[in-house]
Amino acid sequence: MFDYRRSHTCAALRKTDIGENVTLSGWVDRRRDHGGFIFIDLRDRFGITQLVINPQKNAKAHELAEKLRSEWVISIKGKVISRAPGMANPKIDTGDIEIDVLDLQVLSKAKTPPFSICDESIDVNEELRLKYRYLDIRRGEVAKKLITRHKAMLATRQFLDSVGFIEITTPILGKSTPEGARDYLVPSRVHPENFYALPQSPQIYKQLLMVAGMDRYFQIAQCFRDEDLRADRQPEFTQIDMEISFGHPTDLMQIVEKLVAILFKECNGLNIATPFRHIPHCVCMDRYGCDRPDLRFDMELVQINDIAKKTTFSIFLDQLNANGLIKALTVKGGADISRKGIEEYTEFVQRLGIKGLAWLKMQDGVLTSSIAKYFPDEVQQELIKKTNAEDGDLIFMIADQASKTNQGLDHLRRRIAKDRHLIDQKRCEFLWVTDFPLFNWDNDNQRLASEHHPFTSPHPEDIDLIDTDPLKMRSSGYDLVLNGYEIGGGSQRIHNGDLQKKIFEKLNLTEEQLKTNFGFFIEALSYGTPPHLGLALGLDRLIMILTETDNIRDVIAFPKTQRASDLMMDCPSTVSHTQLKELHISTDVPEAIYF
Amino acid sequence: MFDYRRSHTCAALRKTDIGENVTLSGWVDRRRDHGGFIFIDLRDRFGITQLVINPQKNAKAHELAEKLRSEWVISIKGKVISRAPGMANPKIDTGDIEIDVLDLQVLSKAKTPPFSICDESIDVNEELRLKYRYLDIRRGEVAKKLITRHKAMLATRQFLDSVGFIEITTPILGKSTPEGARDYLVPSRVHPENFYALPQSPQIYKQLLMVAGMDRYFQIAQCFRDEDLRADRQPEFTQIDMEISFGHPTDLMQIVEKLVAILFKECNGLNIATPFRHIPHCVCMDRYGCDRPDLRFDMELVQINDIAKKTTFSIFLDQLNANGLIKALTVKGGADISRKGIEEYTEFVQRLGIKGLAWLKMQDGVLTSSIAKYFPDEVQQELIKKTNAEDGDLIFMIADQASKTNQGLDHLRRRIAKDRHLIDQKRCEFLWVTDFPLFNWDNDNQRLASEHHPFTSPHPEDIDLIDTDPLKMRSSGYDLVLNGYEIGGGSQRIHNGDLQKKIFEKLNLTEEQLKTNFGFFIEALSYGTPPHLGLALGLDRLIMILTETDNIRDVIAFPKTQRASDLMMDCPSTVSHTQLKELHISTDVPEAIYF
Repeated sequence: MFDYRRSHTCAALRKTDIGENVTLSGWVDRRRDHGGFIFIDLRDRFGITQLVINPQKNAKAHELAEKLRSEWVISIKGKVISRAPGMANPKIDTGDIEIDVLDLQVLSKAKTPPFSICDESIDVNEELRLKYRYLDIRRGEVAKKLITRHKAMLATRQFLDSVGFIEITTPILGKSTPEGARDYLVPSRVHPENFYALPQSPQIYKQLLMVAGMDRYFQIAQCFRDEDLRADRQPEFTQIDMEISFGHPTDLMQIVEKLVAILFKECNGLNIATPFRHIPHCVCMDRYGCDRPDLRFDMELVQINDIAKKTTFSIFLDQLNANGLIKALTVKGGADISRKGIEEYTEFVQRLGIKGLAWLKMQDGVLTSSIAKYFPDEVQQELIKKTNAEDGDLIFMIADQASKTNQGLDHLRRRIAKDRHLIDQKRCEFLWVTDFPLFNWDNDNQRLASEHHPFTSPHPEDIDLIDTDPLKMRSSGYDLVLNGYEIGGGSQRIHNGDLQKKIFEKLNLTEEQLKTNFGFFIEALSYGTPPHLGLALGLDRLIMILTETDNIRDVIAFPKTQRASDLMMDCPSTVSHTQLKELHISTDVPEAIYF
Repeated sequence: MFDYRRSHTCAALRKTDIGENVTLSGWVDRRRDHGGFIFIDLRDRFGITQLVINPQKNAKAHELAEKLRSEWVISIKGKVISRAPGMANPKIDTGDIEIDVLDLQVLSKAKTPPFSICDESIDVNEELRLKYRYLDIRRGEVAKKLITRHKAMLATRQFLDSVGFIEITTPILGKSTPEGARDYLVPSRVHPENFYALPQSPQIYKQLLMVAGMDRYFQIAQCFRDEDLRADRQPEFTQIDMEISFGHPTDLMQIVEKLVAILFKECNGLNIATPFRHIPHCVCMDRYGCDRPDLRFDMELVQINDIAKKTTFSIFLDQLNANGLIKALTVKGGADISRKGIEEYTEFVQRLGIKGLAWLKMQDGVLTSSIAKYFPDEVQQELIKKTNAEDGDLIFMIADQASKTNQGLDHLRRRIAKDRHLIDQKRCEFLWVTDFPLFNWDNDNQRLASEHHPFTSPHPEDIDLIDTDPLKMRSSGYDLVLNGYEIGGGSQRIHNGDLQKKIFEKLNLTEEQLKTNFGFFIEALSYGTPPHLGLALGLDRLIMILTETDNIRDVIAFPKTQRASDLMMDCPSTVSHTQLKELHISTDVPEAIYF
């Protein structure tokens, strides 16, 4: 029998191997017939090696080789020889040699694939790529990203182990605690009418591990959210989940900074400067209109309520009367933006629900535009000073409710940076956003809601505000932001059962909900809980950044679509009536169930 | 504010640290008042350090220390001093020193725990331990096992990475393919009447990764089976899942042997001899009556149908007429087993549904017992020769259907080895069981069933039997057995779509089932599939062996009971009507749903 076990991968052989007898196995990437000789590019995930079959030397192999088609799996035995002078291929590592094939065996034939495997430059429809994911991976690009993901996971584990963390697997079949996003539920066969929930995060488990004295926990954890998916979301996602006892946020931040630096170095060769800068949430909102600013470029926002007051521009004055916020954004050299360009930006912010976009161009030391007349000279000078505008610049202004003004200018800032190529793609600008508000106001349900989650400790200085002015309270939460993306978030946790209970009450949980969902947890806190804190990094997002892709599906082996379907397996799918009966459930339209 | 960040853990300080100013934080293990001084054993997961509080030197700390109770969390600042002469405690690493406390802060009070934390010798009811799992872990024994598990997982990853494996995470939300055990189902909100299934193993995904050319895959994978739980089963379990391309079983076996040797060395300090022995399935059944024999002791079974034929013992003769199997088991020195002892063994095998247990004792060169008269002298001598019996030995015999005879003597062999202390607990006897049957006969459904799973390749020599005598076919499967436990199993896979289809047809899958459940997979095989093979090791079982426990729940942080409940979280649990409505399902007794 032909022994197809390889002596080398298809990327291994070099000039120094000339004369060696080798066995190679892999996929037929291309076949070329040339002057009676057959040349085959043999491919595996490591690389490509050229085979040559000489009809004079080996008629049988040559006859077989004539039948080979793309993507057939073959194994060959042969001798490494030098390529003919001038025929070396400097583009591939094995380009100096080729294999003089002595024996050839077909291991698997292949139908014509639905898209080209060997030519990555061909753009393939994503639905087709997902349906034939195994072929998409074989093309190479996704495979490379999966290998980076593997390296990053291993480096994470090695580093965290080296600084005393224990990886502990927590259950996937957990309890439904409807706070936050929607749970995926799993009916129980053994306990009729009862359900497990897939975890949105191992939050409670990891805190219990601190109560248990495990000291430093981590896990690369699968998490689940049954939400309507945005382009960069998946129903199951992965986080690097960490928790430590007896530390302060700065201790954890140092560990995370080291970890991130290692990942960028190992996966990307980039040197990341640490420590990362810290910016309080309120400063972020002020300067960038958002809590995850992209710091690879400037264009800070400037609040101009005081200046707006002195204009005669009724839109500004109306907003001031309505407690609105007026902010400006200066585009360096933006005076070259055409009227059509400005119209496009106006439509862009209008799509966010913002009424309008005001603008002024600075030329020869004065501001011009159709609204310039509402700005008296000294007000113009004051605005120029505040915005640091210079000749050739453009000032955009939005006057709206505070949240709208911030949102509009944040989006506009990012859009203009992209349009004007202000972003250095190689730069990584990390920052910690700190001092978040503890609560925000949930207008739909007319109650307080947690800005992060209900286990976040209040800022120690603000604890007295809990009964008088809870919306003014800051939390001990911190987010890690990179280039405009939130890549992680964490907090000091509440380690006092009474305070934890009080927070839940503030969130309007009924006594019954509190007891059913979190009673055991509040009790757990009462048996001697160390101060503890943690953080979770979004692994998918991190790998996206490390592999320079905008598509979350490119960093997941078998991803789901935005409709949470697996196109390859055709799932979710219908199940048998017997299965449902055993689980004591029925679907709303039982007659539609088949087989 | 008191800075509770530690300078050392509670296991770190030694004589060489005397004179150092330190900060320690942890749990009050014990408090003793002694001659006005208060002594506290401060505990964390690393160890214990003794604190001493001198009322003369620090009245305030002393006053506070008087209030301390077990399991309160405290932080102290103090100076490392030598213990008084004769007061050293050689049982703990920090036993030469103690801390002269200068400042003390209570970080958390604690209610009286439901069981003692500091005294591990107290046996605690397991239900209580599971309900208060965070306290059970704090006791130390489970924590140690979790740390071993962490070490084993990391060592696994480092080794497999070093030999070219890529860890790839496969989906938890998969497709229900009702072959094998029962699936856990997850209703889809977006696709009414459709369900995901939690994976019983990543089998199909890992094979598709081979089709995708990933070459060597592994994953420490969470898997799920909704089965009635035996004592050593959990609804979610973990396997070290591996798959390679272009290899033979011996290649994979070598890798696994190295991995196992590393795990035993790193976690247990044991040197494991490799390679492991190989025993074909039929030889295992013959010698041990089972396919996972414990080889730490001898007592091989002997087939005695030929000899039985020559006796006048009607029970034997009847079984021979009914195509039964008669086997003997010789207990060295077993003549000392009393009549009562023999009766107990008889009842033991009868509980397995076996009719009876025959026995003969050898004394002065002849066999004695009430049935000896049915064995003519020359037949006795033949039996003595075949069983290698000597004076003082006891021969047990079972005559029943083959499967019963084997089952009975397998159980009896293990039981006697235990009773007679024949097992060296420190020994590890690994073996590969090979050449399993490909199919067995499913009597309930009157059809062929896969002995392993339907993706297992037939033994290349037996492929022609598929249409003529499929039950005679051997597979290319192999199990790894250690000390009587199956700790892993794998096989060469089918890499030809047509053969895969044929196997499914042999298993009586309808065209419709085949298409719906496995159509995409059979298609995948047709695009150029390399020969591939794999294996999964049961991580939970492996850690049980490495940590020397018989209780699977001891090696899982948050395990479930045999009724698949989490007693700590009280889950599974009821969910709201809104949640069910969003999922388009209802339970059979909707009025029972509350809140």
